[in-house]
Amino acid sequence: MNKSTGRVTLPSEQNFLNETKELMERWGADALRDSDGTKLDDEIKQLDAKIYTTYFVARGNNEFAEQHPEETQQLYLMSQFNTAKDKSLEIDFLKGYFEDQIKPDYIHNPKEWWEVINRTTGDVVDPANWEVKQETNQVIINQAEPWHEYTVSFLAYMIWDPTHMYNHITNNWGDKPHDIPFDARQPFSNQFMKDYLENWLKENPDTDVVRFTTFFYHFTLIFDNLGKEKFVDWFGYGASVSVAALEAFAQEKGYRLRPEDIVDRGYYNSSFRVPTKAYLDYIDFIQQFVAKEVKELVSLVHDQDKEAMMFLGDNWIGTEPYGEYFKETGIDAVVGSVGDGTTLRLISDIPHVSYTEGRFLPYFFPDTFYEGNNPAIEANENWLAARRALMRSPLDRIGYGGYLSLAYKFPEFVDYVEKVTDEFRDIYDTIKGVKPYTGLNVAVLNAWGKIRTWQTHMVAHGKWYKQAYSYHGITEALSGMAVDVSFISFDDIINNGVPEEVDVIINAGDAGTSFSGGEHWKNEKVTATLREWVYNGGGLIGVGEPSAIHHQGRYFQLANVLGVDKELGYSLSTNKYFTEEADSHFITEDVSTFNFGEGMKNVYALSEDTDIIVHTEDGIHLSSTTFGEGRGVYIAGIPYSYENTRLLLRAIYYSAGKEEQWKIWQSSNLNCEVHAYPSINKYAIINNSNVEQVTDVYDGNGNKSTITLQPSEIKWEEEQHEG
Amino acid sequence: MNKSTGRVTLPSEQNFLNETKELMERWGADALRDSDGTKLDDEIKQLDAKIYTTYFVARGNNEFAEQHPEETQQLYLMSQFNTAKDKSLEIDFLKGYFEDQIKPDYIHNPKEWWEVINRTTGDVVDPANWEVKQETNQVIINQAEPWHEYTVSFLAYMIWDPTHMYNHITNNWGDKPHDIPFDARQPFSNQFMKDYLENWLKENPDTDVVRFTTFFYHFTLIFDNLGKEKFVDWFGYGASVSVAALEAFAQEKGYRLRPEDIVDRGYYNSSFRVPTKAYLDYIDFIQQFVAKEVKELVSLVHDQDKEAMMFLGDNWIGTEPYGEYFKETGIDAVVGSVGDGTTLRLISDIPHVSYTEGRFLPYFFPDTFYEGNNPAIEANENWLAARRALMRSPLDRIGYGGYLSLAYKFPEFVDYVEKVTDEFRDIYDTIKGVKPYTGLNVAVLNAWGKIRTWQTHMVAHGKWYKQAYSYHGITEALSGMAVDVSFISFDDIINNGVPEEVDVIINAGDAGTSFSGGEHWKNEKVTATLREWVYNGGGLIGVGEPSAIHHQGRYFQLANVLGVDKELGYSLSTNKYFTEEADSHFITEDVSTFNFGEGMKNVYALSEDTDIIVHTEDGIHLSSTTFGEGRGVYIAGIPYSYENTRLLLRAIYYSAGKEEQWKIWQSSNLNCEVHAYPSINKYAIINNSNVEQVTDVYDGNGNKSTITLQPSEIKWEEEQHEG
Ligand SMILES: [Mg+2]
Ligand SMILES: [Mg+2]
Ligand SMILES: [Mg+2]
Repeated sequence: MNKSTGRVTLPSEQNFLNETKELMERWGADALRDSDGTKLDDEIKQLDAKIYTTYFVARGNNEFAEQHPEETQQLYLMSQFNTAKDKSLEIDFLKGYFEDQIKPDYIHNPKEWWEVINRTTGDVVDPANWEVKQETNQVIINQAEPWHEYTVSFLAYMIWDPTHMYNHITNNWGDKPHDIPFDARQPFSNQFMKDYLENWLKENPDTDVVRFTTFFYHFTLIFDNLGKEKFVDWFGYGASVSVAALEAFAQEKGYRLRPEDIVDRGYYNSSFRVPTKAYLDYIDFIQQFVAKEVKELVSLVHDQDKEAMMFLGDNWIGTEPYGEYFKETGIDAVVGSVGDGTTLRLISDIPHVSYTEGRFLPYFFPDTFYEGNNPAIEANENWLAARRALMRSPLDRIGYGGYLSLAYKFPEFVDYVEKVTDEFRDIYDTIKGVKPYTGLNVAVLNAWGKIRTWQTHMVAHGKWYKQAYSYHGITEALSGMAVDVSFISFDDIINNGVPEEVDVIINAGDAGTSFSGGEHWKNEKVTATLREWVYNGGGLIGVGEPSAIHHQGRYFQLANVLGVDKELGYSLSTNKYFTEEADSHFITEDVSTFNFGEGMKNVYALSEDTDIIVHTEDGIHLSSTTFGEGRGVYIAGIPYSYENTRLLLRAIYYSAGKEEQWKIWQSSNLNCEVHAYPSINKYAIINNSNVEQVTDVYDGNGNKSTITLQPSEIKWEEEQHEG
Repeated sequence: MNKSTGRVTLPSEQNFLNETKELMERWGADALRDSDGTKLDDEIKQLDAKIYTTYFVARGNNEFAEQHPEETQQLYLMSQFNTAKDKSLEIDFLKGYFEDQIKPDYIHNPKEWWEVINRTTGDVVDPANWEVKQETNQVIINQAEPWHEYTVSFLAYMIWDPTHMYNHITNNWGDKPHDIPFDARQPFSNQFMKDYLENWLKENPDTDVVRFTTFFYHFTLIFDNLGKEKFVDWFGYGASVSVAALEAFAQEKGYRLRPEDIVDRGYYNSSFRVPTKAYLDYIDFIQQFVAKEVKELVSLVHDQDKEAMMFLGDNWIGTEPYGEYFKETGIDAVVGSVGDGTTLRLISDIPHVSYTEGRFLPYFFPDTFYEGNNPAIEANENWLAARRALMRSPLDRIGYGGYLSLAYKFPEFVDYVEKVTDEFRDIYDTIKGVKPYTGLNVAVLNAWGKIRTWQTHMVAHGKWYKQAYSYHGITEALSGMAVDVSFISFDDIINNGVPEEVDVIINAGDAGTSFSGGEHWKNEKVTATLREWVYNGGGLIGVGEPSAIHHQGRYFQLANVLGVDKELGYSLSTNKYFTEEADSHFITEDVSTFNFGEGMKNVYALSEDTDIIVHTEDGIHLSSTTFGEGRGVYIAGIPYSYENTRLLLRAIYYSAGKEEQWKIWQSSNLNCEVHAYPSINKYAIINNSNVEQVTDVYDGNGNKSTITLQPSEIKWEEEQHEG
């Protein structure tokens, strides 16, 4: 590999000039950035590098914010459940909230904007039957139904930006003032944001790239009365709510939202909820507004011949890069954190931008960079997870975050990053713009579709959830697989049928969630379309509780296509005879031990026609069946591993009926993967493990060779043409 | 123990006179019975014993049945699901059924009595759009919606009695004719049954007890096309259906039933289904009819100075002993199979009869009585399981079934039964009619209530189900506990509130089942009543998915009372902080390892006020909380064991707030139990295990003594009065 330069961004800091220069050289960096806590010296800014400067749009200007408390960002929040013990019930609606973050909105009439709900019946309590006691932050319900439960949905001001709050609490910033977030939808704030940016751009001539962190509304992040995280939803629109927004919504969409449309029984429309029409309308409305306003900020940046880069996180609400309005913003680049292959693809697949950048791990923070620890290990894990996704869809740049001075103290880490940056550039230079070989086309079907591309089963970015990891393994496996991947919704199916190019559809999730589909599975258009499509040759892979909703004697509405259903306890009287495993199966040829993660209980075969591949004491965990010309495959769960990646890939080939194409651009060893680029006559074999691997490699004609790969090695080969 | 006699029934058989006399003497038997396959000699009938003779009401007379094929019993059956591939769909509605058992009813117009349902939409297909092809047993749907699924609900004749069929197939009876069941509701059959019985009674002067096996309608038992069991529901009313019954129902109840009211999406109203009003009306209607007709048969028996005994099983549908009409039948005695404590109590608690009899295990069949096996082991297990329930509510008699000649060959077994029969009589003579000490009063709450007393979570009698055993442990534990037990329904709660005497309510089952309660939990009267009751001091124990239905942001509708709810994936964004186990807890004082059976996933504490007792990687498995003056306890599952019996008993005391009464008539060793009979100043300590046990015993004043019990020993003590 030749020593190359560029496509790498480093964080820097004050009084670190010479070391910065040294690391820039070793890592081939061509851009430098500041961070929330670090600033760059003028001398550093004069180095031969693009300068990224972090910019906050909606906070960090308390002088302004304090002049316009009525323009502070708002939230709809729900109180705890309260049980009435007699006709009168006092509700401390702030109980459990953090008063440093949350302040009830008494400016707008609670009787108009709040909602008291009887959660036992679901009825809204007539505002005539409750009063707000402002001095004690209480709602008093008169005429309560004894022993019913009640909640209060109230409007509040969010008087502390959640990211600032998190950093403040975590780093013990003491009496440092709290950043007050102000709302782009409000007149003074809107004007202020633009004026301030315009001025700031002029005052920062050395800045080449304005790194917006991010725009107007933070994802929902609420703290509790002990100052600990209470609620976090990386997709949450909580902070976008305001009286102004709700009134504009009514004007534009022709109907008013209820508080319940936002608080959603306390679930706050988590992305695991099947989105309601009202919520979809609402986020569409916010997205349009955000896109329009972002466009204006971006124009100001462009007017100063700078680039506008968006950090995908923090205040990113409304800027969904796979949404309908993102292309209108004019944003030049998106940068985001890369924790694995999924988050890499989330960034690298973003359309309508000039370039994408991934911030790799580890962050240069003391939690990893401490004496006795070797941060190169985490860097290697991160790189192996990311690289297989890069091979499918390269980022244009990579970078790091944190304190460069800290990383500098770990020479082995510095060496390792030198290797990674070189390898990254080598891959990029080879395959950028080149279409990789694609065995099959896979669509992930859920209630969200395209807008949540690579964002299924996520709660907080990068956080592990017991209820999600058995499904998250699917996107992670797909992120580096030689297949094309798209994310489609039930509405796509209803409106346009299954897209022509799709070979295999995956539906995965717990019953009732947006990712499985919930009520959508009662829609006859959805089930009939999919049955017809599979019958005519399509492949359907169901994971967990696919197509699940209890209706008309079925739990899996596509049970006939999958060959299995789940016993809910209603049909115990019906004998379940089919439990015997097949002797062997294409899907499990490479693996003999299984990990289905959380698994699933009580899934059984509908008939002897179902091929049971793995049957545990809890029921079927893996099976297949034919349905006309097509096939259905059921898998109980797919936590991420190389074994499960292989199992899923084989399930994809099998469900599509393309087993005969398996040995094309394929490796026999599941720790290795082959990525081919036919138009440039090259292919790479990667070792995803950190030990040596030997593998057979099948080329595009199915010819086999055997190679040995060093730990983590990538080996490039020229394609040999026959004849 | 003195040698005693009586209260024991033996099966006998031909050519076995002397051995019968010997065993009668050794076991103290005072009654002899025949069986389905065995007859008694005249000589045996002259022994000094009551003679029971098995009698079949509705089968075993093919000469009559063949003369009246239109009076053969009927069933509503549902075809398999069939996917339409175009506008026309042919359904082989008999597919999967056993043509030796099932014959479609073409006598009554299918257009009037059958139903074709689109299971994708739930719509009934207009009879104008389908035709029956009688010669091929097909329904042809025209105007089908392509890719929708369809079922046919059809009326059929059941041309072979299921028990006869089972014995016939199991014992390879070859071309022995198939018993055709005829229907008591039909005119000729009704008259025939009475005439035949009247005549039979006269022809069997030696019979003292007519052992009805049983009356008119067999529980639902359907075989498949391979002659294997396809569907079995011990509570199923399948065989009670007929055109005559449906017409009489419409007349009586004022509305017509649909086939769907009976086939119920293919679930056939399994007792796990929350019963619909239509189904409750229907079984009430059948019960009234059966009671009236049974009463007439019983009168004929009484007219001949014989007793009428009912076998609780086989054709027992409509005779529910805990139902409203049972007392009107005049039946003298009920006999049933005793597999454990639950089935013992099911028999021994039956009201309105002169006596009850339990048929103990093992059955004298070659599957247990074979060379090398020791049937005394099974007999000991059976006795230990039954004895603790006997201590609470004694049967009046016990007995055995099968081939006495087979048992005779196993001397150790003969010895053991001699001990058991003596011990039984000793217990009976001591406690019959004496109220045992009762610590607390426990009600099991489900959608069925009293009518399914001791019959919760049962599918086929005595059969283990993965989805039931974690709940069945509750009734089994309760069956021998020093508590009073009742079974109450949601309607009881709605109409009358919680009965005055109840200290603790148990709600246990999987979500959506009748035993958990399903839709009943949306009824505000139910939830409000129970909240108030607990708040005022009641104890609520929830097992599995208690009070579960997803509604208004809760899954457990009594989450506030239980202190826990279950995460469905909608509220992952809300942090679940409370996972730490309490250091110790009253409920777990005697046990340190746990078996929650199937357990439960994702149950979490609502707040820090919940005492988490056992938290596994799957979430909370055991917890408690206070609610006003009362308490809620959550348990993930309770498979039967002595450890779990102890755990449940402690949970009962704890939830009722009666910990201070724990050491009254109590043993410290959980393998032992104390049963006290204060009115006769006696108490017994039983060793439920088959090894020696040492235990502290607390008497009615809490005074402790320490005793040693031999394996399986029962030790009687006189109560010492103080002062
Ligand atoms: Mg520069
Ligand atoms: Mg006699
Ligand atoms: Mg498990």
